[in-house]
Amino acid sequence: MNEIHRVCVRFHAAIELIGARWTGAILRALFTGHHRYAQIKAAVPGLSDTMLAERLRTLEAEEIVERRVIPTSPVQVEYHLTEKGLDLEKVMDAVKTWSHRWIPLPGDEEPVGASQGPAAAGER
Amino acid sequence: MNEIHRVCVRFHAAIELIGARWTGAILRALFTGHHRYAQIKAAVPGLSDTMLAERLRTLEAEEIVERRVIPTSPVQVEYHLTEKGLDLEKVMDAVKTWSHRWIPLPGDEEPVGASQGPAAAGER
Repeated sequence: MNEIHRVCVRFHAAIELIGARWTGAILRALFTGHHRYAQIKAAVPGLSDTMLAERLRTLEAEEIVERRVIPTSPVQVEYHLTEKGLDLEKVMDAVKTWSHRWIPLPGDEEPVGASQGPAAAGER
Repeated sequence: MNEIHRVCVRFHAAIELIGARWTGAILRALFTGHHRYAQIKAAVPGLSDTMLAERLRTLEAEEIVERRVIPTSPVQVEYHLTEKGLDLEKVMDAVKTWSHRWIPLPGDEEPVGASQGPAAAGER
């Protein structure tokens, strides 16, 4: 396996893990301090129980998320980022910055990036 | 729509666009100087013609990639990143750094990140 191929294999695996449907949004919820199942669900509009449970299982299996059982009565379950998960912070920040510049919101003005192109219509 | 929801909608859209199956690898090929269809295909092991054509169409529609027809004889077609696409460089770099640390290659030693945990087996 040559060096380019090696980089490619890793990169490919990483970006598809993070970019899987709902995974990015779930990670973002965890980064912003939502640790309980119901909190995560509430933080990600449109996410179903089935999908959240499945994604949390995958993230646990990938050792990105750790499931903690808090011995209260009744017991509580919390999901926390592991060291591997926390290390995704720069990826998350870079995506957030890019999306803020380039992804328009429904009904919004053009995003910042789009208005930095050649002369806007009003300028001539 | 509150601020958290607004950030979330954008972030979600961005990460799923970039993380769609094969898209990250195709972007990486473009960033590393592969501009012709056959070059991109060769740079992404396992990518089919159908999928490459579909992804390039999506990336064009999203204005991340621009299709250029070079007026040689016969004409050549090249795919180049637009300003919006080039602006993904920090995202790509962050994913590459993380993947290098945390994603093992088949048959490789443990990745760097894994060896920085508590005492490795050989140390006790």
